[in-house]
Amino acid sequence: MQRDCYRIVDRSWPDKITAVITRLSQLFCRTLREDPADAEVASHRWLVRAGYIRRAAPGIYSWLPLGLRVLANVERIVREEMDAIGAQEVRFPALLPREPYEDTNRWTEYGPNLFRLQDRKGADYLLGPTHEEMFTLLVKDLYSSYKDLPLSLYQIQTKYRDEARPRAGLLRGREFVMKDSYSFDIDDAGLDASYAAHRAAYIRIFDRLGLEYVIVKATSGAMGGSASEEFLAVSPSGEDTFVRSPGGYAANVEAVRIPVPTAVDASAIGAARPVITPEAGTINALVTLANSDFPRPDREWTAADTLKNVVFKLALPDGTSDLLMIGLPGDRDIDPKRLEAALEPAEVTALAEEDFAANPGLVKGFIGPVTLTDGVVAQHLGAEGPLKLRYLLDPRVVPGTAWITGANVSDTHLIDVVAGRDFTADGVLDVAEVRAGDPAPDGSGPLSLARGIEMGHIFQLGRKYAEALGLKVLDSNGKLVTVTMGSYGVGVSRAVAAVAEATCDDHGLSWPPALAPFDVQILATGKGEEIAGAAERLAEDLDAAGLRVLLDDRKASPGVKFTDAEVMGMPLAVVVGRGLADGVVEIRQRASGERSEVAVGQAVAQVLELVNR
Amino acid sequence: MQRDCYRIVDRSWPDKITAVITRLSQLFCRTLREDPADAEVASHRWLVRAGYIRRAAPGIYSWLPLGLRVLANVERIVREEMDAIGAQEVRFPALLPREPYEDTNRWTEYGPNLFRLQDRKGADYLLGPTHEEMFTLLVKDLYSSYKDLPLSLYQIQTKYRDEARPRAGLLRGREFVMKDSYSFDIDDAGLDASYAAHRAAYIRIFDRLGLEYVIVKATSGAMGGSASEEFLAVSPSGEDTFVRSPGGYAANVEAVRIPVPTAVDASAIGAARPVITPEAGTINALVTLANSDFPRPDREWTAADTLKNVVFKLALPDGTSDLLMIGLPGDRDIDPKRLEAALEPAEVTALAEEDFAANPGLVKGFIGPVTLTDGVVAQHLGAEGPLKLRYLLDPRVVPGTAWITGANVSDTHLIDVVAGRDFTADGVLDVAEVRAGDPAPDGSGPLSLARGIEMGHIFQLGRKYAEALGLKVLDSNGKLVTVTMGSYGVGVSRAVAAVAEATCDDHGLSWPPALAPFDVQILATGKGEEIAGAAERLAEDLDAAGLRVLLDDRKASPGVKFTDAEVMGMPLAVVVGRGLADGVVEIRQRASGERSEVAVGQAVAQVLELVNR
Repeated sequence: MQRDCYRIVDRSWPDKITAVITRLSQLFCRTLREDPADAEVASHRWLVRAGYIRRAAPGIYSWLPLGLRVLANVERIVREEMDAIGAQEVRFPALLPREPYEDTNRWTEYGPNLFRLQDRKGADYLLGPTHEEMFTLLVKDLYSSYKDLPLSLYQIQTKYRDEARPRAGLLRGREFVMKDSYSFDIDDAGLDASYAAHRAAYIRIFDRLGLEYVIVKATSGAMGGSASEEFLAVSPSGEDTFVRSPGGYAANVEAVRIPVPTAVDASAIGAARPVITPEAGTINALVTLANSDFPRPDREWTAADTLKNVVFKLALPDGTSDLLMIGLPGDRDIDPKRLEAALEPAEVTALAEEDFAANPGLVKGFIGPVTLTDGVVAQHLGAEGPLKLRYLLDPRVVPGTAWITGANVSDTHLIDVVAGRDFTADGVLDVAEVRAGDPAPDGSGPLSLARGIEMGHIFQLGRKYAEALGLKVLDSNGKLVTVTMGSYGVGVSRAVAAVAEATCDDHGLSWPPALAPFDVQILATGKGEEIAGAAERLAEDLDAAGLRVLLDDRKASPGVKFTDAEVMGMPLAVVVGRGLADGVVEIRQRASGERSEVAVGQAVAQVLELVNR
Repeated sequence: MQRDCYRIVDRSWPDKITAVITRLSQLFCRTLREDPADAEVASHRWLVRAGYIRRAAPGIYSWLPLGLRVLANVERIVREEMDAIGAQEVRFPALLPREPYEDTNRWTEYGPNLFRLQDRKGADYLLGPTHEEMFTLLVKDLYSSYKDLPLSLYQIQTKYRDEARPRAGLLRGREFVMKDSYSFDIDDAGLDASYAAHRAAYIRIFDRLGLEYVIVKATSGAMGGSASEEFLAVSPSGEDTFVRSPGGYAANVEAVRIPVPTAVDASAIGAARPVITPEAGTINALVTLANSDFPRPDREWTAADTLKNVVFKLALPDGTSDLLMIGLPGDRDIDPKRLEAALEPAEVTALAEEDFAANPGLVKGFIGPVTLTDGVVAQHLGAEGPLKLRYLLDPRVVPGTAWITGANVSDTHLIDVVAGRDFTADGVLDVAEVRAGDPAPDGSGPLSLARGIEMGHIFQLGRKYAEALGLKVLDSNGKLVTVTMGSYGVGVSRAVAAVAEATCDDHGLSWPPALAPFDVQILATGKGEEIAGAAERLAEDLDAAGLRVLLDDRKASPGVKFTDAEVMGMPLAVVVGRGLADGVVEIRQRASGERSEVAVGQAVAQVLELVNR
């Protein structure tokens, strides 16, 4: 609806701003010859070395002039596409009062990820990680009728998260710029439409950023809510692992729900029986020992025949803690990120020695769901078992499947323990690692795995926040109904790093034209008034043609200028140097490495053609 | 140097953004009929009532779409003028580590005005109130030679101050947007030039904002430094009092230094003598009693003949406290703001009863600098006196002047106590109230007083920060020299309120064209397809002509639309209503109240002429 918030014809001072070419000799920028010590990924390394950003504290960065221009370009693209779907821009504070976050329980649920502080009067505040509560309350403040809906609001704003491990420069920071938007609808169909509009806008945004990305099914994390997708920039530096199938299934690993096998007929399987398994406290040792001491008639035992049981400690946001045991086929490990996502907001840690000491019923290496006493099988775990330990099972452990598993006695396992017959669990938990080759849940073929950077996240919040904060409007029958909401985020500062990561090479940054701080860098290489003058004139001509021009007018060697131009990464460079004597300049294309000589008189036309290509 | 950070021709998606007129029926905006309860000043009242801002917490506001557009317009003007003087835009984090602020002692000196917090590892952070330290360190990080200077950097960024009394909406907030810039020069002449360039840019900025403002001499507060001026928007709602003289002197009251009278010959004045003054614990009572019991031969005693002594408690940033006594002519009061500014960073409070109880030498109502014991005058106060109390004197109390003052004994004063003869002080403190009619310090005539809103502050920091943080560069002789700095601020969000304050009237806001969210508001008044269609076409035509158009297409009465248009304050309104039957529309100019009818076919031309006038 708002076409251009910042278009304004300023009539009072039309001619006050005189055009000046940006000169590298005066630009607040220094390229570095060495990698920063803490740089783990290429984008971080080059953004620092090229003078785009500087670290101010762990996960907190300052933007230098070049970096700020890229950031502004990302912001502009995001703003245009949000405006295009009728979303309206607002801006909330970053410093927020505790109360609304208390009402939705996020003050607690966010745990140590939230920056909390008190003002001089002792009132509690937080630095906003996202603004669901504030948007909900603002709409409640202004709107009261179904006629006011649908509504989409957004902001481009600085956000805060006290990450345990800030890393990779702008990719995972503690202070960062996000676009967050929120949709408000009277019913589910409205929410679906708002969600679809945001999804389409995000596709345009990430297309314009020039990123290779995938849209994957996602979990909604601490936000609550239902339908949820992530836009991941495909990158080996990404922190997120996702899967995709030839048939088009795509999900981040946290969101994968494996196809559940059907129950098996166990009537032919004999009773569970104990076997002595000295020092077989690992799955590998157990399988080796089983094959030598208790061989199967039909085939070899494999790790897939064992039921592995792992106990974790959960730290809950309210400060209490709890133990949880998970059973899964022994050929799979638990994926820590899937586990974390499934148990959020609880924080999960492995059991320490003292935890085992405090729970003598847990015999390390020999834990299992049942005990066998005098030939009688008894449920050992579960909320009703002697250990009162909550027990959740991998979905593959369907009723009727038989397992070798720990007997809760040192050096002892049980064979032919049958799920559903000999033990049950308190529920199902799908947190085992997903492997390349696993079948897609929708039958669309084998999964492959790749890594990505989370660039955007859209999800249907539903009525969680509206209910907690009392956002209701009158419907067409004059009845109060709770509004349904969507929440949509784009990592704006992260996009700067993601694009840098995707486009940089061994020589430095290489910006796509839409994000580059300048369209063209002009290098005056060689001494003499003539070269300097020609470079200056070319800069002026390109500027007059509407391009953003950076002139390298430094007293530096050609080698230094060539190297820096590659490090800094403008899409085009024009070298005004020795060739000038023959009436030519050289045009270099950063991304392709292509070089060509053109007559000085043709340079402007040629550059314009390349820029507009 | 950077002409236009945000000009970019996006070639990849040239036609994706379709123009859409902003419709009031869909704009996230509600006008309110009632004043907000906490609104003390007109700008606050109208910005809230017109749907520009909403309070999120004390001194913390959310920007609605209309408000955000005004803010963006102010930012644009500031950015253009900073770019025009070659300042380069950067952006620092708001969340800052403690260490640099420790090195300059501001971590302590800022006292309770600083928002402090700890991260999950217990490391100390603050929310930046200004960024001298960070800029200094960044320049130190990048630059090393005099050839790199002069340099001016700026940012437009969200800042934090935990004000004891946030008030007046955006005028004194706790989270606010500022433009802060910093200049770096090799020598004092360079600093003078950078200061002058900023001063000129500020003049252009405040001219373009359309503010009536004065440039006054200022103190530099907690920043340290020397030359310092403030740009004050003249407004009775302002918190700052300033003085000016017919001859052109202007200063805020904190910065006024009164002309010091020359010493007086006291040789004819007799020895100090005690007089009994029962219940004369106030200046008024003392003067009345003196005139009745000890009349002067030449004239009446007046309050100006008495030496008033006031004791304050100072709370120092390091947590210690101290007492300070100030002596001044009894016809003047101490100005709390001048006192505060002079003693910063100490916090000043009046003495409580328990303080008097703890210091029995201080006889309330009868405090004075000397005692008279057996006819012998003895210095009572001062660091060497029996009370060990630091004593500072108003500059008017020059040597040779004779006073009636307290004798440090209940119901007793001394007459003919002569400054310099009978007592001395530890120093001079010029904190008495400045009065209309007082002479200007530079002899340019009598002062008048007015109030203003601090919009900008420029000052020469000098080498304080560069020294504390070790910012040195090599000079042309290869010698390391400390850089000298300037610091320059503009209250960007405050400017929104200051302009609103200056331009609003009893009916609502009234924006100057350069700041208005829209150039023109079109009111479709009256029912029927024809009026709606004509309003729509006019909106499209004005939009096509390059104007920013807001169309009031709501199903509301003409009265509501007229009222809201005045409240919302666009410079022009076009009423498409009953006149349409006669082929005319009405153009209303918000600021002047002028109204005129024009033929429908002439409306676009007429509006354009008014906008471009």
